[in-house]
Amino acid sequence: MADLESFAHLDFGRGDRRGYPEAVYCAGKTTAQLSAIAAAIRERDVPTLFTRAEPEQAQAILASLPDARHEPQARLLAWPATPPPPSGGLVVVAAAGTSDLPVAREAQLTARYLGRACELVVDVGVAGLHRILERLELLRRAKVVVVVAGMDGALPSVVAGLIAVPVVAVPTSVGYGASFGGLAPLLAMLNACAPGVAVVNIDNGYGAGHLAAQIAAA
Amino acid sequence: MADLESFAHLDFGRGDRRGYPEAVYCAGKTTAQLSAIAAAIRERDVPTLFTRAEPEQAQAILASLPDARHEPQARLLAWPATPPPPSGGLVVVAAAGTSDLPVAREAQLTARYLGRACELVVDVGVAGLHRILERLELLRRAKVVVVVAGMDGALPSVVAGLIAVPVVAVPTSVGYGASFGGLAPLLAMLNACAPGVAVVNIDNGYGAGHLAAQIAAA
Amino acid sequence: MADLESFAHLDFGRGDRRGYPEAVYCAGKTTAQLSAIAAAIRERDVPTLFTRAEPEQAQAILASLPDARHEPQARLLAWPATPPPPSGGLVVVAAAGTSDLPVAREAQLTARYLGRACELVVDVGVAGLHRILERLELLRRAKVVVVVAGMDGALPSVVAGLIAVPVVAVPTSVGYGASFGGLAPLLAMLNACAPGVAVVNIDNGYGAGHLAAQIAAA
Amino acid sequence: MADLESFAHLDFGRGDRRGYPEAVYCAGKTTAQLSAIAAAIRERDVPTLFTRAEPEQAQAILASLPDARHEPQARLLAWPATPPPPSGGLVVVAAAGTSDLPVAREAQLTARYLGRACELVVDVGVAGLHRILERLELLRRAKVVVVVAGMDGALPSVVAGLIAVPVVAVPTSVGYGASFGGLAPLLAMLNACAPGVAVVNIDNGYGAGHLAAQIAAA
Amino acid sequence: MADLESFAHLDFGRGDRRGYPEAVYCAGKTTAQLSAIAAAIRERDVPTLFTRAEPEQAQAILASLPDARHEPQARLLAWPATPPPPSGGLVVVAAAGTSDLPVAREAQLTARYLGRACELVVDVGVAGLHRILERLELLRRAKVVVVVAGMDGALPSVVAGLIAVPVVAVPTSVGYGASFGGLAPLLAMLNACAPGVAVVNIDNGYGAGHLAAQIAAA
Amino acid sequence: MADLESFAHLDFGRGDRRGYPEAVYCAGKTTAQLSAIAAAIRERDVPTLFTRAEPEQAQAILASLPDARHEPQARLLAWPATPPPPSGGLVVVAAAGTSDLPVAREAQLTARYLGRACELVVDVGVAGLHRILERLELLRRAKVVVVVAGMDGALPSVVAGLIAVPVVAVPTSVGYGASFGGLAPLLAMLNACAPGVAVVNIDNGYGAGHLAAQIAAA
Amino acid sequence: MADLESFAHLDFGRGDRRGYPEAVYCAGKTTAQLSAIAAAIRERDVPTLFTRAEPEQAQAILASLPDARHEPQARLLAWPATPPPPSGGLVVVAAAGTSDLPVAREAQLTARYLGRACELVVDVGVAGLHRILERLELLRRAKVVVVVAGMDGALPSVVAGLIAVPVVAVPTSVGYGASFGGLAPLLAMLNACAPGVAVVNIDNGYGAGHLAAQIAAA
Amino acid sequence: MADLESFAHLDFGRGDRRGYPEAVYCAGKTTAQLSAIAAAIRERDVPTLFTRAEPEQAQAILASLPDARHEPQARLLAWPATPPPPSGGLVVVAAAGTSDLPVAREAQLTARYLGRACELVVDVGVAGLHRILERLELLRRAKVVVVVAGMDGALPSVVAGLIAVPVVAVPTSVGYGASFGGLAPLLAMLNACAPGVAVVNIDNGYGAGHLAAQIAAA
Repeated sequence: MADLESFAHLDFGRGDRRGYPEAVYCAGKTTAQLSAIAAAIRERDVPTLFTRAEPEQAQAILASLPDARHEPQARLLAWPATPPPPSGGLVVVAAAGTSDLPVAREAQLTARYLGRACELVVDVGVAGLHRILERLELLRRAKVVVVVAGMDGALPSVVAGLIAVPVVAVPTSVGYGASFGGLAPLLAMLNACAPGVAVVNIDNGYGAGHLAAQIAAA
Repeated sequence: MADLESFAHLDFGRGDRRGYPEAVYCAGKTTAQLSAIAAAIRERDVPTLFTRAEPEQAQAILASLPDARHEPQARLLAWPATPPPPSGGLVVVAAAGTSDLPVAREAQLTARYLGRACELVVDVGVAGLHRILERLELLRRAKVVVVVAGMDGALPSVVAGLIAVPVVAVPTSVGYGASFGGLAPLLAMLNACAPGVAVVNIDNGYGAGHLAAQIAAA
Repeated sequence: MADLESFAHLDFGRGDRRGYPEAVYCAGKTTAQLSAIAAAIRERDVPTLFTRAEPEQAQAILASLPDARHEPQARLLAWPATPPPPSGGLVVVAAAGTSDLPVAREAQLTARYLGRACELVVDVGVAGLHRILERLELLRRAKVVVVVAGMDGALPSVVAGLIAVPVVAVPTSVGYGASFGGLAPLLAMLNACAPGVAVVNIDNGYGAGHLAAQIAAA
Repeated sequence: MADLESFAHLDFGRGDRRGYPEAVYCAGKTTAQLSAIAAAIRERDVPTLFTRAEPEQAQAILASLPDARHEPQARLLAWPATPPPPSGGLVVVAAAGTSDLPVAREAQLTARYLGRACELVVDVGVAGLHRILERLELLRRAKVVVVVAGMDGALPSVVAGLIAVPVVAVPTSVGYGASFGGLAPLLAMLNACAPGVAVVNIDNGYGAGHLAAQIAAA
Repeated sequence: MADLESFAHLDFGRGDRRGYPEAVYCAGKTTAQLSAIAAAIRERDVPTLFTRAEPEQAQAILASLPDARHEPQARLLAWPATPPPPSGGLVVVAAAGTSDLPVAREAQLTARYLGRACELVVDVGVAGLHRILERLELLRRAKVVVVVAGMDGALPSVVAGLIAVPVVAVPTSVGYGASFGGLAPLLAMLNACAPGVAVVNIDNGYGAGHLAAQIAAA
Repeated sequence: MADLESFAHLDFGRGDRRGYPEAVYCAGKTTAQLSAIAAAIRERDVPTLFTRAEPEQAQAILASLPDARHEPQARLLAWPATPPPPSGGLVVVAAAGTSDLPVAREAQLTARYLGRACELVVDVGVAGLHRILERLELLRRAKVVVVVAGMDGALPSVVAGLIAVPVVAVPTSVGYGASFGGLAPLLAMLNACAPGVAVVNIDNGYGAGHLAAQIAAA
Repeated sequence: MADLESFAHLDFGRGDRRGYPEAVYCAGKTTAQLSAIAAAIRERDVPTLFTRAEPEQAQAILASLPDARHEPQARLLAWPATPPPPSGGLVVVAAAGTSDLPVAREAQLTARYLGRACELVVDVGVAGLHRILERLELLRRAKVVVVVAGMDGALPSVVAGLIAVPVVAVPTSVGYGASFGGLAPLLAMLNACAPGVAVVNIDNGYGAGHLAAQIAAA
Repeated sequence: MADLESFAHLDFGRGDRRGYPEAVYCAGKTTAQLSAIAAAIRERDVPTLFTRAEPEQAQAILASLPDARHEPQARLLAWPATPPPPSGGLVVVAAAGTSDLPVAREAQLTARYLGRACELVVDVGVAGLHRILERLELLRRAKVVVVVAGMDGALPSVVAGLIAVPVVAVPTSVGYGASFGGLAPLLAMLNACAPGVAVVNIDNGYGAGHLAAQIAAA
């Protein structure tokens, strides 16, 4: 097994300082590195989320933490598998289209493992306004709404105009051509014509869920 | 007066071929050039729109065509001043915000001078959905709707989802920062999640009005 | 089979409202999701186009809708397989080069399944002007012309200068280097020096065909 | 005075729905339009913020609302001049450099007029870490911290690593060359290596203050 | 007068090596610097072109070289004023629109002062194909054709398809919005679908004229 | 075999008009299409270059034209295999690095098949100036020099400063990171500080060879 | 006079820690702020450089520090006026063109006020290689060479290939069109084909001079 | 074996002139070319680094130079395997995250093979400031610090503010979405708010190590 000190400097006290689980960003790490990190986490008993884990990486983590929960669609692993009991306000995650679901699920699970209750609504894009308007009652119960959308990135503006709480907007790389890998919805969300829209990186479901959990903290 | 042949090759037969007035793009032309062009137009009696005319340029044109109509907000001059009687279907122009009005008026006047009836609704951006929903009856009477919006460029997607006819989307340079001079709404409109959206250049009210007039032709 | 409600909110009434078949954008959807969607479509008997279907996705759809028509080159499936009888005006699709054919076919089939007669001409790029000039009679019979071009994106300007009806311009990602994935023809088309050019997203044959069908509706 | 209905559709009920003052974005509006809007606001007695008001625009507004508060540095006017009594949690605004002050003040005033207590710290950029570390006690009392920075946009990542509450990051156009008008700090903030960072548009002090006020609401 | 050695290292032998006049790029130079350079040129009797000279800069040059020729539209000064007798093949400069004329004139004068005969045709954009087709006989007499165009940049592709000699394509910043300062025609020209197109920098009439003169050299 | 008329409109008279072989751009064409095109070319006996042919595409072409010459490194096929006897002036192709060789070879072969003598020098980048200076005698014998370079794209400026004839500059996608697929050398070449530099598309060896052959024609 | 604490947090101990004068970036600061900062600097006797000072800003600084040195071309003020005696190795600044001189002078003065001997050579661009080759002896005496260039940004690659010490490359915004405000030379320098090239921001003469002084420190 | 002269012009005297080993950039070279180059290197006994070698390329090199050292993580081969004895000052390489390790190792090994002592610290990103602050003593012993970071690229600004010697900043492509392949940290580093930051290309560990070795030379 790789020597942990030679490639990582884990921040095991971070949970104490901020009240949330440690996160390990898997992209660019070797399976040997992830195995060593997972073993150290088990040894020190640190609640952890592993993000952007490809299948082979997930296998390496599960070898050290076999009781972790693995959600392949969201590329996420959580250890321990059971999230904390919900506290704070409700988080609602709204995904514009079915293809935005992996990112939306990553946001939902992150918020849940950081301690919030979290509901997910899917396929409520603005091309059929009745779909989002039908969920207005749920949206208005939330302490914060995460909106996940690719293509035109129009949904956050519409939702922010309908509710009084913050919207966390997540552009996705869903789309093609002049989407330019999510640039189109990113710029649209940064220029949202309604105030109250907080933008995170393209496809960053983890960051959105984390931010929402912080906003909805008691 | 400048010698017309040395800098322009006017296409006086174009009205015959396409059924619409000649257009002269004023940006980058000297006042001497515009005077000579206006004089030639008067002499040959060719209905003409002058687009993107700055005040000094407009004065040069009006010196040769004093009975032209000048709309400074839209930077447009029309000669003769009276538009043709309306034919074809109704064009509706919807502007997301007050700051989009100059471009919206350019579109409206162009469509009108190309022979269509044209109505204008303003300040119907998606941050307050009730504003556009209140105009649904009017929108559904149109043969084509021109939607003018800056910032997030979200309005065309919403409108296209509500009606059965084409939407001509005009991004504007209204906004700042990550609008990047209109790039944000341009990309959003090209990625509209509802089909039936035709995009033109940033701030191109003339092009939008022309296209709408063609679509709504009898 | 996946639970439809958990990932999609199909808009089965849309055909009624807009008069056109439902469309399912396949990119980013799992085969399980597409199977469930296809089964629901069959059950509710909703005419549907499936766009951007990769071979494996097409197989999943055909498993539920074996009598659908599948055009692999255009990545399109249509159900039912028979298009409606033609109504409205003629749509002509012109592709600049052979490599633009997949997008052109997607446009043609879409227009046809939305109820228009539609003819296709191929390899009529501006490097050999006689090729497009030879088809002038056909172009002038159209109610709208879809022009598909990559590289310099020059064909829509030329066509729009020759006819009196709208041109729907589709930039393609055909090319390399400074094409930047279709950015070059996209910008060229947005800056077309002839009025009457409506631009859609790069490689968006479906959107172009849909818009053309709306413009050419009776 | 201009006819209000012809260019604006004010949303006087918005304060009721969301609990915050109306906002009027002044850029691109004529002084005649702003005079008419200000008069209507006085007549209906609607608390309002005017953002991005250039001096001449501010004069037009003050002519109708002479008792408004005008902060030229922040390009902001507030009417009525007295903010509501503070409620909810503390907002802290931290500006990396002196040149970021106009945007930071816009954020501070907005948060204050939306009902939050708000403190401002200036010139605490990361090139001298002791400056931000000296303010740690204040930062840790906040319910949300707004961080305003141009150039490398590094301050939000550092602050987010030091506190447990959300950071609202505002990139500014302060800088030159490869700042590309604020693109550099915008991208840096979207890629913040610490979670809990919410990004708004370049120079968007109003949006940041609004979002912070929502997050810190009771 | 400024001390020449402290800011410039003139290359007075260049004319000998390459057979063409020296060129001084005026942008960014002070009037004092230009005066000193012009005086040195007169003293050493070096034929020179001054490019991109603003009016105040031109005055400084003319103070030292009063018999120079100044063409304000092209921002060019030539000394001595009389060009060499024509040698080599014919250069034709074709400008798509009237607004492209300053760049086209810069190209024409440069080619002429480098020793070529040079003819100019204007306003022959592709929106009216008959305009360029009418000049085919002239174009086919050229040894090289310089094509100057903004907006869609389509003219070089069309011209290159009609003739057998090289086309030097000059994109211009004529246009607005998605022209992005000439990026649109620049990319279009780099992707010209006809071979034989040589591209130079946006608005670089001097470079185009120089290149054309080299290509048409005997 | 596919029906040629349904996807291509070959321009068999082009060789007559311009004096050069037909070219078929293979990217994006199916092997069935290429087979049909190759068969038509054999039948009509039209000298042809096939560019950007991947191995599978080359096999399809060779099946119809087994006596064609195939240069895999340059992705080029030529039919007939024997180039015409050299006429006109000498073309020299200079490649900055070994990795630029495929593009340089494409340029060299193209120039040769269009009838010019053509010499190739490799690995003469500006980091070791003596390498290009050692080849000065050869460069000065050329009628035109094609310079192929990635990374900083500095070689064309240096070469153009050393010779009196045109330089055709070909940026390549060799490099990584801030090369952005060849954007860096493309922009550098467009901004060459020496006049006489003609730029073509990134990796466009064919276009460079064609242009050079035209410039060096007798 | 403005209250210093409300807008700045001067780092008067920085000189001690790093051994170099304090720097005040003037862009975006009001004259009142600069007056207050200059007064505090005089009071505490802190050697300081003021960078990017426009004329009006320089007047405000000189009112408090009348014995400062002001170099308008470089937009720089230094207080005290006398630089420290030279120590460490020689810095050479090489500017490609006369128009790059303001940035080159900013670099030279900065290096000098940080304690290095510094020589400047101007107008040694690669279009005339003999100009830089003539200065080789001087370049080879340097401990570090700052190379300032706009347009193609080719000079750093050439210089780095000729010497054994580091090159600090400063792209400038000199140029037009596809220079895109200095993006072209910036990218070229980042892709320099010779190792040993350190890049700083566009037009950042101060940063280059500072870095060079650090590298050449004893 | 391929004929070396036909594709490479090795600069075997370079080590003499600059005192450092030759470098061969492997990307884009065939295995046959690399074999021939490696054989020539052995024959002439030239110390060499092979950079960006993919596994198959490394095999080809090792076939000719079996005693070379191969570090797959850094994609580097060094021949001879033993680095020179350390001279000059200490180089420290600091990597923000574990995923930046391959680039950091490339820098470390390069500096070592150019003759410097070099220490590596990993996972010291700014989200946990204590990690970098704990290494302050080591950082302050260095003659130059190489900082390797992706995402927000904030670490170089923080480090440069803590030490008195130059920082060589290496942006990496670690990250996703709005990182745009490393553009985000590249721009952040170019805009570093602390002076003394030298930027190299994205992922350019070799260039950073080389530059650091030059700066730390005795």
